[in-house]
Amino acid sequence: MAERLYLYDTTLRDGQQTQGVQFSTAEKRRVAAALDALGVDYIEGGWPGANPTDSAFFEDAPETRATMTAFGMTKRSGRSAENDDVLAGVLNAGTGAVCLVGKTHDYHVERALGIPLKENVDNIAASLAHCVKEGRETLFDAEHFFDGYKANPGYALTCLRAARDAGARWIVLCDTNGGTLPDEIGRIVAEVIAAGIPCDRLGIHTHNDTETAVAGALAAVAAGARQIQGTLNGLGERCGNANLVSLIPTLVLKEPWASRYDTGVSRAALEDLTRTSRMLDDILNRVPLKQLPYVGASAFAHKAGLHASAIEKDPSTYEHVDPSAVGNRRFIPMSNQAGRSNLRRRLTDMGLSVAPDDPALGRILDRVKAREAEGYAYDTAQASFELLAREELGQAADFFEVKRYRVTVERRKNKYNRTVSLSEAVVVVKIDGEKKLSVSESMDESGGDRGPVNALAKALAKDLGRYQDVIADMRLVDFKVRITQGGTEAVTRVIIDSADGQGRHWSTVGVSPNIVDASFEALLDAVRWKLVRDVTG
Amino acid sequence: MAERLYLYDTTLRDGQQTQGVQFSTAEKRRVAAALDALGVDYIEGGWPGANPTDSAFFEDAPETRATMTAFGMTKRSGRSAENDDVLAGVLNAGTGAVCLVGKTHDYHVERALGIPLKENVDNIAASLAHCVKEGRETLFDAEHFFDGYKANPGYALTCLRAARDAGARWIVLCDTNGGTLPDEIGRIVAEVIAAGIPCDRLGIHTHNDTETAVAGALAAVAAGARQIQGTLNGLGERCGNANLVSLIPTLVLKEPWASRYDTGVSRAALEDLTRTSRMLDDILNRVPLKQLPYVGASAFAHKAGLHASAIEKDPSTYEHVDPSAVGNRRFIPMSNQAGRSNLRRRLTDMGLSVAPDDPALGRILDRVKAREAEGYAYDTAQASFELLAREELGQAADFFEVKRYRVTVERRKNKYNRTVSLSEAVVVVKIDGEKKLSVSESMDESGGDRGPVNALAKALAKDLGRYQDVIADMRLVDFKVRITQGGTEAVTRVIIDSADGQGRHWSTVGVSPNIVDASFEALLDAVRWKLVRDVTG
Repeated sequence: MAERLYLYDTTLRDGQQTQGVQFSTAEKRRVAAALDALGVDYIEGGWPGANPTDSAFFEDAPETRATMTAFGMTKRSGRSAENDDVLAGVLNAGTGAVCLVGKTHDYHVERALGIPLKENVDNIAASLAHCVKEGRETLFDAEHFFDGYKANPGYALTCLRAARDAGARWIVLCDTNGGTLPDEIGRIVAEVIAAGIPCDRLGIHTHNDTETAVAGALAAVAAGARQIQGTLNGLGERCGNANLVSLIPTLVLKEPWASRYDTGVSRAALEDLTRTSRMLDDILNRVPLKQLPYVGASAFAHKAGLHASAIEKDPSTYEHVDPSAVGNRRFIPMSNQAGRSNLRRRLTDMGLSVAPDDPALGRILDRVKAREAEGYAYDTAQASFELLAREELGQAADFFEVKRYRVTVERRKNKYNRTVSLSEAVVVVKIDGEKKLSVSESMDESGGDRGPVNALAKALAKDLGRYQDVIADMRLVDFKVRITQGGTEAVTRVIIDSADGQGRHWSTVGVSPNIVDASFEALLDAVRWKLVRDVTG
Repeated sequence: MAERLYLYDTTLRDGQQTQGVQFSTAEKRRVAAALDALGVDYIEGGWPGANPTDSAFFEDAPETRATMTAFGMTKRSGRSAENDDVLAGVLNAGTGAVCLVGKTHDYHVERALGIPLKENVDNIAASLAHCVKEGRETLFDAEHFFDGYKANPGYALTCLRAARDAGARWIVLCDTNGGTLPDEIGRIVAEVIAAGIPCDRLGIHTHNDTETAVAGALAAVAAGARQIQGTLNGLGERCGNANLVSLIPTLVLKEPWASRYDTGVSRAALEDLTRTSRMLDDILNRVPLKQLPYVGASAFAHKAGLHASAIEKDPSTYEHVDPSAVGNRRFIPMSNQAGRSNLRRRLTDMGLSVAPDDPALGRILDRVKAREAEGYAYDTAQASFELLAREELGQAADFFEVKRYRVTVERRKNKYNRTVSLSEAVVVVKIDGEKKLSVSESMDESGGDRGPVNALAKALAKDLGRYQDVIADMRLVDFKVRITQGGTEAVTRVIIDSADGQGRHWSTVGVSPNIVDASFEALLDAVRWKLVRDVTG
């Protein structure tokens, strides 16, 4: 029979210690709702009284199935728990649970607090007993526990026993500096249990300073701890906390964890994990990391040719879990690492069927290799890859020909002696035998110049004759530039992401020593791919 | 007495499997030099014959203290090792060591290779024996070893014994799917050693699919393995390989590792680790991750007020290692006062002395803050920062004024009906009351167009009157472009690195929605900084 393992999320408190992260109250509510839907057991909402946003959040805390928890610290010396204003602030938040951090490392007690060791034990006991008496589920975060235990095991254990005897539901061993490695965490947790702290009241709180926070949490559970503290996407002070987005799928999907433990996360909720992780990035205006375990865009991307061909025969050959179980997807990027079977599969996904012995396959691979040596990159620019493949397969369409273009950027003083810049582009295309000249300048809504690439994109899209309606719902979503090596010289690689009204997203690439020319090439591919889809498709 | 632990870097091979990563030959050389300076024992340079860049790299491989290694796979069935062209390609690279990947999981042998189990064992033995006979240090990468061992331990061990008996120096247990958790890795490594594979010939290769690659490698070493394979910054297929940048400091600085094992990384070389990690990001044009263990900009940032005040009393209270040991720095989100003393130190380093109570200090801090919100970045662009500071300190010089510029990019068919492009720039400056018009086109030695920024740089440097001699020895060394957030809109940030005949190197920054304008701003700062140094200095 599986044992219950509890998940405690501190994204809204320790996660907010991440450099550059400060949630608004509305954002805290969104994150809390997502955590609740995911199925964590506790949501630590912040430190009421310590920071105005946290106080505001608790004043109107959302209703959750998970136990909402307020964070604070054990009372100071020289006053009773009943008269400690910090503690009062925490209790006044009115949450079902309260988590108090306190010291267990003798050095910190004497050096940072400057009080006798015994007094700190009394403060822990009195603070926790007070919260229990007030009817709250009470947690004790044992700060610096592992360092403290190594320095003075007797004292560190005395602190934990005081918390236990005061009625704390959970005693959480915190590796506050993040310096304790998994083996040592496992050993110390086992010793703590042997010393009389019941394992079903023991939690673990790790940090990622040695890149082992997830493994440290797992080691603690293997040794007997029954609560894991962590954050979404591993947010948190310094290098972050244990990443629940990595821990949860391991606990739910992988043995021996899946059989040994039950968590509050259902298989159905797990299928929303990728979306939840990306929602947090969206709130923080961060680009989601592709390499994130389980939920990253690359987590199930198979670039090596060897891998991709085996995947085709049986996905389990190179995937340790099914990507759909966490709401993610398999992806086989095109690149010069790819082999023929990889290529055929990619083409099939694009709706291009090719016989296994078609000589065009070899030509496509050769061209991809040659172009990547020039600085092109097709693993993201799938639309440019498709156009290249269509050419070799004789399935390209000549919608129009660009005869020439010219773009001018001018910076000068205007009549008020202010410096202004202006970009202007002329594009000449031939469609159905007819030559069309289009001109456009680059202006955003406030009259500011957006530069030559913007002007070129506008001019190109201005008059494409009978194709004009087709491209009307196209828009440029993102524009990425990098200087790279093309052969022996530095060249510019431009990747453009486009989207249309039908919800399609596609990426194209251009390469040239001339940044405007590289951009134009990527723009042209973007328009052509759209026409392939909507004119011939 | 400490045992020797060997570090094997595969950034240039497995790291290149990262989605979006394709190193040029020149970039491979830069990475190899950095790895060599760091002190890894093996540098896996790529797969010669599988990909043109890798072949080119080995044709002119750099001299390294580390053993340069070529990667490949065991021979195919139906031919001898001597007649296998893939194997020949690997051996022809002429490296000191050769690493061959081969199957050890029965299911993969029968399903992916479609050959009898015995034949695969013979292929492993014959391939490795051939490389040993050719005088190469030979490694065997046992693909899918952990899954294979769990499915059929007898067969997996037979494959390893074949490699051992063929004379492989190293037998590397690969967790190819990244699905094996640290506990299981430790247990299986111990069983492999008990089954007769000597621990001093055993290596470990983990992937980060459960965010435990680093812990998995440590678990293998604890169980007896003596070689660790990994990559810089954890690059690699899917979620990446074990991150050597996290592993190395743990092995060198932290107990019990530091006393138990010696590696080739000296304490002095370790102090370059942060720089090495960021250099790789620079090559890949990636923004360095702040949360990276040991080397991230946030790794020693103390945001919580509680932590920051304790740190002031004793850094060891919240830091598990000294940041300077890995070339990183402590960062405390500063009060205005701390900000000022920092700023004064920076200005003094530049030769600008300022009184502690100079109100210009506050103005400089405010302007840097405002500009960074617009998208500027002064941590690398020190020369632009100096110009900004000089303005606020009243120590700027007006050498010349740019009245206007115009740059044109044109692409058209030439008389041979080939597409050519041409960039032309006109710059108008006023020097000593005199207006000067300069025009330049952009051409490299072979007559190719290098684009609008090159044309502008040439025109700007063509006639600066009495300053012309001063800038004659200036040259543009590097040009980096990034799309970033400036206020609410996407803007282009250009960083230009310049150098002169006196060996000076300096960096300047420009920001604008218009990429040409951003480049011009950075160019202008580069010229102005040079004039400050050589005209007034």
